[in-house]
Amino acid sequence: MSIQKELTIELKSQFPASRKVYVQGTRPDIQVPMREITLEPSRGDFGEEENEPVRIYDTSGPYTDPVYEVDVIKGLPPLRQNWILERGDVENYDGREIKPEDNGFKEGDPRANLEWFPNLNKKPLRAHRGKNVTQMHYARKGMITPEMEFIAIRESMDPEFVRKEVASGRAIIPVNINHPEAEPMIIGRNFHVKINANIGNSAVSSSIEQEVEKMTWATRWGADTIMDLSTGKNIHTTREWIIRNSPVPVGTVPIYQALEKVNGIAEDLTWEVYRDTLIEQAEQGVDYFTIHAGVLLSHIPLTAKRMTGIVSRGGSIMAQWCLAHHKESFLFTHFEDICEILKAYDISVSLGDGLRPGSIADANDEAQFAELEALGILTEIAWKHDVQVMIEGPGHVPMHLIKANMEKQLEICKEAPFYTLGPLTTDIAPGYDHITSAIGAAQIGWYGTAMLCYVTPKEHLGLPNREDVREGVITYKIAAHAADLAKGHPGAQIRDNALSKARFEFRWNDQFNLSLDPERAREYHDETLPAEGAKTAHFCSMCGPKFCSMRISHDIKSMAHEKGLTEEEVIEEGMKEKAKEFVDNGSNIYK
Amino acid sequence: MSIQKELTIELKSQFPASRKVYVQGTRPDIQVPMREITLEPSRGDFGEEENEPVRIYDTSGPYTDPVYEVDVIKGLPPLRQNWILERGDVENYDGREIKPEDNGFKEGDPRANLEWFPNLNKKPLRAHRGKNVTQMHYARKGMITPEMEFIAIRESMDPEFVRKEVASGRAIIPVNINHPEAEPMIIGRNFHVKINANIGNSAVSSSIEQEVEKMTWATRWGADTIMDLSTGKNIHTTREWIIRNSPVPVGTVPIYQALEKVNGIAEDLTWEVYRDTLIEQAEQGVDYFTIHAGVLLSHIPLTAKRMTGIVSRGGSIMAQWCLAHHKESFLFTHFEDICEILKAYDISVSLGDGLRPGSIADANDEAQFAELEALGILTEIAWKHDVQVMIEGPGHVPMHLIKANMEKQLEICKEAPFYTLGPLTTDIAPGYDHITSAIGAAQIGWYGTAMLCYVTPKEHLGLPNREDVREGVITYKIAAHAADLAKGHPGAQIRDNALSKARFEFRWNDQFNLSLDPERAREYHDETLPAEGAKTAHFCSMCGPKFCSMRISHDIKSMAHEKGLTEEEVIEEGMKEKAKEFVDNGSNIYK
Repeated sequence: MSIQKELTIELKSQFPASRKVYVQGTRPDIQVPMREITLEPSRGDFGEEENEPVRIYDTSGPYTDPVYEVDVIKGLPPLRQNWILERGDVENYDGREIKPEDNGFKEGDPRANLEWFPNLNKKPLRAHRGKNVTQMHYARKGMITPEMEFIAIRESMDPEFVRKEVASGRAIIPVNINHPEAEPMIIGRNFHVKINANIGNSAVSSSIEQEVEKMTWATRWGADTIMDLSTGKNIHTTREWIIRNSPVPVGTVPIYQALEKVNGIAEDLTWEVYRDTLIEQAEQGVDYFTIHAGVLLSHIPLTAKRMTGIVSRGGSIMAQWCLAHHKESFLFTHFEDICEILKAYDISVSLGDGLRPGSIADANDEAQFAELEALGILTEIAWKHDVQVMIEGPGHVPMHLIKANMEKQLEICKEAPFYTLGPLTTDIAPGYDHITSAIGAAQIGWYGTAMLCYVTPKEHLGLPNREDVREGVITYKIAAHAADLAKGHPGAQIRDNALSKARFEFRWNDQFNLSLDPERAREYHDETLPAEGAKTAHFCSMCGPKFCSMRISHDIKSMAHEKGLTEEEVIEEGMKEKAKEFVDNGSNIYK
Repeated sequence: MSIQKELTIELKSQFPASRKVYVQGTRPDIQVPMREITLEPSRGDFGEEENEPVRIYDTSGPYTDPVYEVDVIKGLPPLRQNWILERGDVENYDGREIKPEDNGFKEGDPRANLEWFPNLNKKPLRAHRGKNVTQMHYARKGMITPEMEFIAIRESMDPEFVRKEVASGRAIIPVNINHPEAEPMIIGRNFHVKINANIGNSAVSSSIEQEVEKMTWATRWGADTIMDLSTGKNIHTTREWIIRNSPVPVGTVPIYQALEKVNGIAEDLTWEVYRDTLIEQAEQGVDYFTIHAGVLLSHIPLTAKRMTGIVSRGGSIMAQWCLAHHKESFLFTHFEDICEILKAYDISVSLGDGLRPGSIADANDEAQFAELEALGILTEIAWKHDVQVMIEGPGHVPMHLIKANMEKQLEICKEAPFYTLGPLTTDIAPGYDHITSAIGAAQIGWYGTAMLCYVTPKEHLGLPNREDVREGVITYKIAAHAADLAKGHPGAQIRDNALSKARFEFRWNDQFNLSLDPERAREYHDETLPAEGAKTAHFCSMCGPKFCSMRISHDIKSMAHEKGLTEEEVIEEGMKEKAKEFVDNGSNIYK
């Protein structure tokens, strides 16, 4: 089968000088994956010493484990299955029948369900009647689940701290009981800032193979979750392929599929169609749903004078529905019913910002903040059900208005995790919106946003291809890591320090291997200096040998060594006199 | 001649739907260039109305004027010549003889001066004895020069305001009287944030043609100044080509050439060699010099324990010299002599930050801030001579430490303009350092930095090529513009609004044409929807037709029009009842 063949080749590629290691928890089935990067020893001028390997957070899943045999038809191993079953609060049941409309076809269409996932599980899990299987529920009962312990090891944190953060609602662990393949991860502002990569086909472009490949590609480069935003044909089957093979949580926007089921006519949406879609996706194992339940009928006039109206797809669909029926959104009126479903599968809700600004002109306007108030109300409803919640945020926002977004969100939504798109700090750079938005994303991450939704260079222009996904993910890894550094997250600087030390010591290979994108770093270096000898040369083509400041810094050290003194002794020796002279002359530099 | 032929073809390429316009000042020889972008009318659902053309700041010089005939051998027309001469304070004189060593050759080397600029001016200008020809000097005497008026028009500011900012030292106008080809521009925090592009060959790579091409390429995309950091052979001649053809101010780091003259041996540098180099470059027309005069002997021990030592080329050269001689830097001790030269040509000084941090670990350390204190002293010395000054800043700085850099600089250097490299907010992304640094650059620009020195994707890895220059310039235009928006710079949002309106109205061509890089925006869009019809389609491949939120927003409008009501009336009509109901139910959304 072509999907399997191509993906196997792609996915088994390793990062250079890296090996997969597993850190075991208190029980043998808690095995937390990390990528360990081996470094060369320091040499010559830099002393003769070994350099400790660096372990980094690893989102790439079993694909980068050389022992693991990729089989995209079987899917990934169900890592969490026992943890889920041993809690004794779930049951298997006959799942909902898959219908042609789930893939966007009419009854009897010969193309319907041609593309089924071969190894389909028809017996999904759900909570026993009256049970609540959310991680928040367990946390509030004082339980430290294996998921929490796994995360604690992954984040170098205390398991009890993880439990408390989840219990308080400050962090969420998106893990549907029907997605046991996912490696547990946490979204909360006291943990590493996470990034999400959107993938998914549209009616115009892309295929199942491409989307599965984008998912594995995105997680290889560091995506912590992915969202499948497919809107074309075969979206049920595409999602099945993605979930069965995804080592990270998968999010969706169920209203997209619901709209397909009513042939794209927003007015024809009903609570029943939407509810059916939630169950369908819950059984497949979607880990979090974006639900635009905060777009209320009364908000819509507030958008009438906007520069760019409503730019969220889900928001505009619901606005159209509300207007056509002159009724309040069924997502809002049925929100408690939605929570009943979510807690039976442990699906987190990501409260969508349907009225986020789509231009600098519309940033922080009345419509946006009116919706945020509604999201605050919904957060409390979800928490009443022990349903895990995060809040989606803007959008297009100039830098000076970003902080207010974070502050209002924390206050109104009682510190539920914030999950923002960008924000984009200017509108004038289509083709470069990964950058306009990374500027905003780094800032809002520093201010406290828990997860950043990536933006690719194709934003506003078209569907991202594989290279766009890589560019978007790396750009957002930069923003998230810059935020971790600025927040003083413990251990965040280890990798920076190791890379900078390698740079200073001209260990070029280590510099490449420690970087977010070793391939590109090496490729750029080799463009002008391809020879293997250049990998230990004390310069690069940027400045050439004579002008390398790092080389000169070393010469300064050598000058000291030759005289049998430490560098500082030599310098101090030569300077005492001069320094005294300057002080005597009253220069205030030396005061 | 090959240089001319290739460049002519390249440089005459126009931006789409753009025309060069000139705004005349109070006298006919003040003609301020701008790029005017013509927009399509709004159509159909969006009303039938013309859209005003948008005028943008234009750094591309005469090359984008269709009337101008490019002749790189003759160079650009000497725009400012009369302004300089009519002030009656300058004289022509026999310039310094060009020597083989100026191009890095020994006396008698057959390659020496093979590459002379053909149309060399051997009679440079300098101030009459006892005269001071700096714009700061004129400003302090109360004169509004044509340069200031030109800038006032360019920035939509009052000429008297420009004069005051220059007189106070809060802004500089880098314009050597021997570079009359340059279009006057201003660097100061109450004006548009500017960007600089570094070009220049190294001993390993590049040629004269490539560097001239990079200069014109960089200014085409928006570089406000360029720095020629050449360090290989033929640097005198490369610089001559660049200056004669550059419509923007050109900066250099004279110590690089001085070091070449002593065969790369820092210890052999002398004040005499350096002085000779300053005169050589002054006569050619360099507009600003980076001078690392703040690296003092006493600072060097402070760098001994650093992760990455000294990473400024100029800084490390001077540190080596200081140590070898156990003497204070001649740049510091001769700083008054330097000012005497600068004021005779109106060369601005950019006080180099030789001890800027080269890694996150070294940010905001004692060495860095000790040097800043020295730069504060030097600023006051320069101002005593009415010499225009700006201050260079870091480097590698995590986000939470950026603001302190700006605040200290303003305080210690009495509000002289700040000119920063990046700063880079993490060390772990070589290959993407245009992005790690744009995050920091946008922030420090917002806090008050006047000019941002670009970083290309090749930073730390090699010499940038043409495409890297484009990527670096556009990335920094984004950072600078985001900073202008955040500072609330008057008029900054006009382009964002025009582009967002075009986006909302599906005027795809206008959206491309208004963007920083129209070519790339169009190329990305056309990758999936190349047909001409798609340029007016009410969707793109990102979401497809059914899910386009903008399209749905318009449907909401249409729904209103069909009923012969304004959108708001329709919405209000349908909602009064619902809103009342919710208030009655006590929902706090409606309070």
